[in-house]
Amino acid sequence: MDAQTYPLNTWYVAATPDEIADKPFARQICGVKLVFFRNQQQRVVAVEDFCPHRGAPLSLGFVENGQLVCGYHGLRMGEDGKTQSMPNQRVAHFPCIKHFAVVERHGFVWIWPGDQSLADDSLIPELHWANSPDWGYGGGLYHIKCDYRLMIDNLMDLTHETYVHASSIGQKEIDESPVATKMEGQTVVTSRYMDNVMAPPFWQAALRANDLADDVAVDRWQICRFSLPSHIMIEVGVAHAGKGGYDAPDSHKASSIVVDFITPETEHSIWYFWGMARDFKPQDQTLTDTIQKGQGAIFAEDLEVLERQQQNLLAYPERSLLKLDIDAGGVQARRMIERVIKQEQAASAQAKVGENQ
Amino acid sequence: MDAQTYPLNTWYVAATPDEIADKPFARQICGVKLVFFRNQQQRVVAVEDFCPHRGAPLSLGFVENGQLVCGYHGLRMGEDGKTQSMPNQRVAHFPCIKHFAVVERHGFVWIWPGDQSLADDSLIPELHWANSPDWGYGGGLYHIKCDYRLMIDNLMDLTHETYVHASSIGQKEIDESPVATKMEGQTVVTSRYMDNVMAPPFWQAALRANDLADDVAVDRWQICRFSLPSHIMIEVGVAHAGKGGYDAPDSHKASSIVVDFITPETEHSIWYFWGMARDFKPQDQTLTDTIQKGQGAIFAEDLEVLERQQQNLLAYPERSLLKLDIDAGGVQARRMIERVIKQEQAASAQAKVGENQ
Amino acid sequence: MDAQTYPLNTWYVAATPDEIADKPFARQICGVKLVFFRNQQQRVVAVEDFCPHRGAPLSLGFVENGQLVCGYHGLRMGEDGKTQSMPNQRVAHFPCIKHFAVVERHGFVWIWPGDQSLADDSLIPELHWANSPDWGYGGGLYHIKCDYRLMIDNLMDLTHETYVHASSIGQKEIDESPVATKMEGQTVVTSRYMDNVMAPPFWQAALRANDLADDVAVDRWQICRFSLPSHIMIEVGVAHAGKGGYDAPDSHKASSIVVDFITPETEHSIWYFWGMARDFKPQDQTLTDTIQKGQGAIFAEDLEVLERQQQNLLAYPERSLLKLDIDAGGVQARRMIERVIKQEQAASAQAKVGENQ
Repeated sequence: MDAQTYPLNTWYVAATPDEIADKPFARQICGVKLVFFRNQQQRVVAVEDFCPHRGAPLSLGFVENGQLVCGYHGLRMGEDGKTQSMPNQRVAHFPCIKHFAVVERHGFVWIWPGDQSLADDSLIPELHWANSPDWGYGGGLYHIKCDYRLMIDNLMDLTHETYVHASSIGQKEIDESPVATKMEGQTVVTSRYMDNVMAPPFWQAALRANDLADDVAVDRWQICRFSLPSHIMIEVGVAHAGKGGYDAPDSHKASSIVVDFITPETEHSIWYFWGMARDFKPQDQTLTDTIQKGQGAIFAEDLEVLERQQQNLLAYPERSLLKLDIDAGGVQARRMIERVIKQEQAASAQAKVGENQ
Repeated sequence: MDAQTYPLNTWYVAATPDEIADKPFARQICGVKLVFFRNQQQRVVAVEDFCPHRGAPLSLGFVENGQLVCGYHGLRMGEDGKTQSMPNQRVAHFPCIKHFAVVERHGFVWIWPGDQSLADDSLIPELHWANSPDWGYGGGLYHIKCDYRLMIDNLMDLTHETYVHASSIGQKEIDESPVATKMEGQTVVTSRYMDNVMAPPFWQAALRANDLADDVAVDRWQICRFSLPSHIMIEVGVAHAGKGGYDAPDSHKASSIVVDFITPETEHSIWYFWGMARDFKPQDQTLTDTIQKGQGAIFAEDLEVLERQQQNLLAYPERSLLKLDIDAGGVQARRMIERVIKQEQAASAQAKVGENQ
Repeated sequence: MDAQTYPLNTWYVAATPDEIADKPFARQICGVKLVFFRNQQQRVVAVEDFCPHRGAPLSLGFVENGQLVCGYHGLRMGEDGKTQSMPNQRVAHFPCIKHFAVVERHGFVWIWPGDQSLADDSLIPELHWANSPDWGYGGGLYHIKCDYRLMIDNLMDLTHETYVHASSIGQKEIDESPVATKMEGQTVVTSRYMDNVMAPPFWQAALRANDLADDVAVDRWQICRFSLPSHIMIEVGVAHAGKGGYDAPDSHKASSIVVDFITPETEHSIWYFWGMARDFKPQDQTLTDTIQKGQGAIFAEDLEVLERQQQNLLAYPERSLLKLDIDAGGVQARRMIERVIKQEQAASAQAKVGENQ
């Protein structure tokens, strides 16, 4: 067993609601193989994907009356991890499997993989854009074979846009502009402002979608906000130059929020939920689709870099990487992660001592 | 090296005779890479698939005059594992490779992978249906990535038909009917009788093939017989209800024997020889083909369950599985297997002590 | 870490010049992941494929003004393994990565993977056929999953042609003719002469290309020359019988040199650069292409044998192989290799002692 590399007593995005329909849905999260299904009230629930009878994956079965039926010998598993029934069997003594707190909120399915007695749905982050008619949202999901912290580094240092996304959102001025990193409460904020530059293709399109001229100089901004365990919201936008930049009135700017939820599958692979929330033309589904397609193509460019970077780091485990100013956001985020993992481990050790007294 | 998980001093089905024609045939059995070929008398023989000259697989070569010729440098291997000749070389001092007792009988090629001095072909099981004009047989071979004992469990507990084979041979009454498990000499017998039920699609077709009405109630039976090391014969059938069930005269029933020979390839993979022997219309090749196709499709439904079950068990090695009444056949079979493995190991240890005295 | 199995302080063929154009070129050699590129003078250079900033492979980037630019965040790597610049950063303190001596010569790119202070390009072998208008050359590259020494064995014992290449260059008389192996300075020479035989198809074509009758008896020869670390040149040819064989005048013979450079990728995989140099019709590109195509097909026949042989040897690591007279070339070559590896290790140990005093 490797050292723990992700917090467990926290909420991760596990899925989008459309992924969990009338069939059991298997997904590994934080090293645990899970099966999700909808109970009789259509609420999403999750248990280990392991039938206590003979170890078959419960996800190969089916859902009936809100119970998960094993596809091998018909054991009926309840959402609480207790066997409800099995033909011709008394099931009271059957061993339980683990069940997990799951909440459907803000257009996502959230899971708490750690100590279930600590699961508190008031800790699920507020997402103002997710529940307002003034905002539109489109997104997607990528599976990437890398440590989730490499994805955090990637998103907290947008310098890479100049190189990885040269044809869409990248531009020379990004890595020529300094970044500033600071803590705002429990949030790491890395910001970069580029004044009086030409908008790259993605932002030209966004200007047009806002009925703004796309061939004039703009002020551009990127404000990355990391919060535990691995959520990153990035305010991005452009305003016609000299109109106030980030603070310009809506009539002069195009802006949106890049949404990133990074969920560890294993130590070296992730489920990456990405998307974009915008407060212009929120009901325009064609625009949503166009942005989603464009963003999906851009984010796909990161996949090979991240997976090959991961392979290199595994091949040279002893090498320490540089921590430059542009890396400060990722460095701060990793520090917060390490701290909370240590707290979890200390609490867990103390709980064991308590049990033994 | 893992602990020994299969008996070695016993006969396994290695192949069907048609698989071994004029070319060398490679197959790994019980962890040993073997090459089979036909000697000058057209008898199937087997040696290790390893040329004593430079280690090339002999199966890449060819057969000439009943000798196996290495395809790399022309070494000629005899069926006794001794090099017969090599161009321009004296071969008397060449190291031998292992050769294995092989017998072609009952339409199968049998191999004894263990101590060759103990190989006794009178221990090959009698298969009355294999050598009688009153019986027809069709079958096939599947490679499955699971411990051979999971396949034994599967076949000794047909409750799974209700779930895995719902559209062909499964029916609700299977898992509603109790099973009985007992020992008959060296055979584990698990039986289940379902009276006055409707025949599922597979058996409706069998009734029609016996010129019997397929839309009336039937008595159905399943009698699974396990014998060492991993042979399972299952008497299955239906009779028009009230005509005597299993003991009904032939004119009122359709019955057959499901034939299962399970041969370990490695600790976690098998060669699964399946088939069906029937004593009605034995010469009807079209019927044989239809049954084979149907059975092949049904048995293919088990593959994913078994392989995913195996993966789950490897991921959670510490979890103990339930042993319910429906599992009693598999449990008893595993007990017999464990006992014979222990006997083999004790005999082997004693033999070593004898050598050292 | 396995024991060292290949010399490091020596020149290997890393690539052909056409492989390294305007983009970075990744290749693993002797266990090291390398990236090759052309510097401002268009000279090929090589450094580790690992960006000192965040570990991304430099080969995913691009080359600009003879510098390698990382495709993730724009670090510019020099051919000396020192970071030249990075936008908005001071790079003087950045850790260096290893750089490697690389020389383009004789139509190949050579690399010295070991101690760079010992790299001496006068040690690159002379290849008289590579720099003369009297000679034509065509070749190719195969990736094979085997220990490089198995390829050496293969080429130093052409007995296998009778079996592996039966339809092209093999003939019965090869393995009926004795071989002689001797040392000539630092070269292992294995030779075989077959007098008064019929030419196999490949050599019939070569005779026709030399405007010689292809349907008369010939004297055939094969003279294999191994030199460290893993270069094998094979003089092969046929002369009309009785005209002097190997020493016959050019007007009666067809001959050429089979060129083999074997470069370890890892302990169990190789880059195999093969080709043929001929001193007849050297400028005839159609003939070059025909020979290359034929030789490529012949050498492809070795791939499966070598890879399967490697798998067998890994499965039975304790078995010792036979060392017959036909194997003497490979045996001698392996002895030379072992000796030079021991020398390298002794020198390396001594250097460490020196450092500590």
